[in-house]
Amino acid sequence: MPILTDQDIDDLAVGAALLGTGGGGDPYIGKLMAKAAIAEFGPVELIPLETVADDAVVLACGAMGAPTILIEKIPSGEEMATALAFYEANLDVKTTAVIPFEAGGINSMVPIALAARHRLPVIDADGMGRAFPQLEMETFNVYGVPAGPVALADERGNKVLIETASAAKAEWYARGITIRMGGQASIANYGMDGITVKYVSVPATMTLAIGIGRTLREAQASHSDPIAALIAFFAKTHYRHAGVIASGKVTDVARREENGWSVGVVTIEPFDSSKPKVKIRIQNENLVAEEEDGAVLAIVPDLITVLDLDTAEAITTERLRYGQRVNVLAVRVPPIMRTREALAVFGPRAFGLKHEYQPFGLDCGLAAVK
Amino acid sequence: MPILTDQDIDDLAVGAALLGTGGGGDPYIGKLMAKAAIAEFGPVELIPLETVADDAVVLACGAMGAPTILIEKIPSGEEMATALAFYEANLDVKTTAVIPFEAGGINSMVPIALAARHRLPVIDADGMGRAFPQLEMETFNVYGVPAGPVALADERGNKVLIETASAAKAEWYARGITIRMGGQASIANYGMDGITVKYVSVPATMTLAIGIGRTLREAQASHSDPIAALIAFFAKTHYRHAGVIASGKVTDVARREENGWSVGVVTIEPFDSSKPKVKIRIQNENLVAEEEDGAVLAIVPDLITVLDLDTAEAITTERLRYGQRVNVLAVRVPPIMRTREALAVFGPRAFGLKHEYQPFGLDCGLAAVK
Repeated sequence: MPILTDQDIDDLAVGAALLGTGGGGDPYIGKLMAKAAIAEFGPVELIPLETVADDAVVLACGAMGAPTILIEKIPSGEEMATALAFYEANLDVKTTAVIPFEAGGINSMVPIALAARHRLPVIDADGMGRAFPQLEMETFNVYGVPAGPVALADERGNKVLIETASAAKAEWYARGITIRMGGQASIANYGMDGITVKYVSVPATMTLAIGIGRTLREAQASHSDPIAALIAFFAKTHYRHAGVIASGKVTDVARREENGWSVGVVTIEPFDSSKPKVKIRIQNENLVAEEEDGAVLAIVPDLITVLDLDTAEAITTERLRYGQRVNVLAVRVPPIMRTREALAVFGPRAFGLKHEYQPFGLDCGLAAVK
Repeated sequence: MPILTDQDIDDLAVGAALLGTGGGGDPYIGKLMAKAAIAEFGPVELIPLETVADDAVVLACGAMGAPTILIEKIPSGEEMATALAFYEANLDVKTTAVIPFEAGGINSMVPIALAARHRLPVIDADGMGRAFPQLEMETFNVYGVPAGPVALADERGNKVLIETASAAKAEWYARGITIRMGGQASIANYGMDGITVKYVSVPATMTLAIGIGRTLREAQASHSDPIAALIAFFAKTHYRHAGVIASGKVTDVARREENGWSVGVVTIEPFDSSKPKVKIRIQNENLVAEEEDGAVLAIVPDLITVLDLDTAEAITTERLRYGQRVNVLAVRVPPIMRTREALAVFGPRAFGLKHEYQPFGLDCGLAAVK
């Protein structure tokens, strides 16, 4: 049984930032939470999706809120435990395994902290395969698991339970409460059994994130090209295709808080001045990368992550600054995230974008790709 | 045991509008609900506060939302039943009596509809002795009953349970959910036992409202002065003192929806042109009536209600129009609503007014009172 090591947690933080595609909250904070919980309560087991017992009671959990606020208002393990206990008490169930609802960002870590505290295993899978800004943007929802009931808790012990048949309403009410809890809350939802979890989840995303972190660490140690190493790593996973869509300098960052989200646009001016500027549109996460004339380089649900030019470490939306020298990496998501029904929930249209989804590296004529 | 008659419900609607002090939602809509529920499920018993059994399980209930929206989006009996059932299921209790959390406006009627459906008695008392715009503005809260848990439901079966030790937080979260449920929701909260309800409630407010309606109906039938009859009626109740603070024409109505409330100012120009204009400030309910120079004629928690000049029927905030000919009636609230701790929760300061509370007709130098 694989036990998460201290090194794994460090690697996971790096990989989860990349899978966060700019959002999902800075995993560094989550890393501190997870390590503190493991130190206090003991090690956490990461179990492969296919080994989950059919009669397991699985609950998804994480933190909800704008990433910029997560930095200021760090969720405590206590708070997450309150949400879990509130869910269990009201639904009269006992959780036997937790699954991150989001492998990208801080929510890769929150379930580890919770699992340590409750002596529960964490399933090596998630419901987003990356980070998304809304609660209904989950493969769990896409493939039929109700988003409600949702249990929310804040750091002062305030608790809210939402019951609704609509995933959109679950998001709408939970977002409203999260805003009124100060912009950040811990949530537990998408309760399901061990049979269900196997066909509604994006598999192996926790080990994917750990692998990303390990790849960058090893490239750094051996002074080899981290981007080349990353692309080679993704080729061996079910994500398969990754590529650099822009290399340049951040020349503009427009960002604001709106309805509980961080929204904005970042502009990157290529080092190669013959190439057009690239604009990335953001709603917590990076949604679409376009050239000035509107040509799409990569688009949601595919991953678009801004990486530091030298270290290839991901730069979250809230840490983007004028003058940063960056590579923009795009990664195609696995098939379970590219079905017709998945795109209806977290494809371009779900974000109000008018574009059709073009899978990165399959059929999108990306002249800028290395 | 007094059973509510059809006539009682009609009278209650008229009286509840007056106790609504402009807000609380139009009781006419509630009347239709209550009558339909009684026709379908059978009669409802109104029991005096002092006869409630010590081991009774009492739950307060009503509709939450802006009065202007309550007119458009009428709560159904089904919806209130959903809130009650959700409260009971999660708290594992069985309600034996319901109490209106608000005797003014539509919330005098919602508990009757619920009581008919569940064959429960309604207690002749409430937690506001009038209408107030916020959930924590309850004598229940003032005298120590926790506002949470709060169960909310909408007409589509969406349900939310809020657990918090803070009455202000209960209001804050419930208001957020109410807004996201479309501006109106049914709620059940302030669960308490039969011993407690007797010392935290404003007694006999349902029969007070019925008495107001009956008084106006009888005055109309006998062609006698309805205002004089009202003032005489109040003198025999624990409210005791009522008086007219302005007679004139509505010359301006400024009103808008803000954070789920109806807020605004109405201006009345006296028929006696030697008298100054009177301005009434509104937050769902009428909060303060002032002369142009700032002299206070009456102030919250005392009742300020705009009455039709001829019929003396109350005009709710959302029905105020330029040109209406009106009397403005002020009524002093009973002592349980005028204690130091009560004023801390629903006195002028609680509404952001800078004035001290001056009990109407005790010591406020009201030159304008008839």
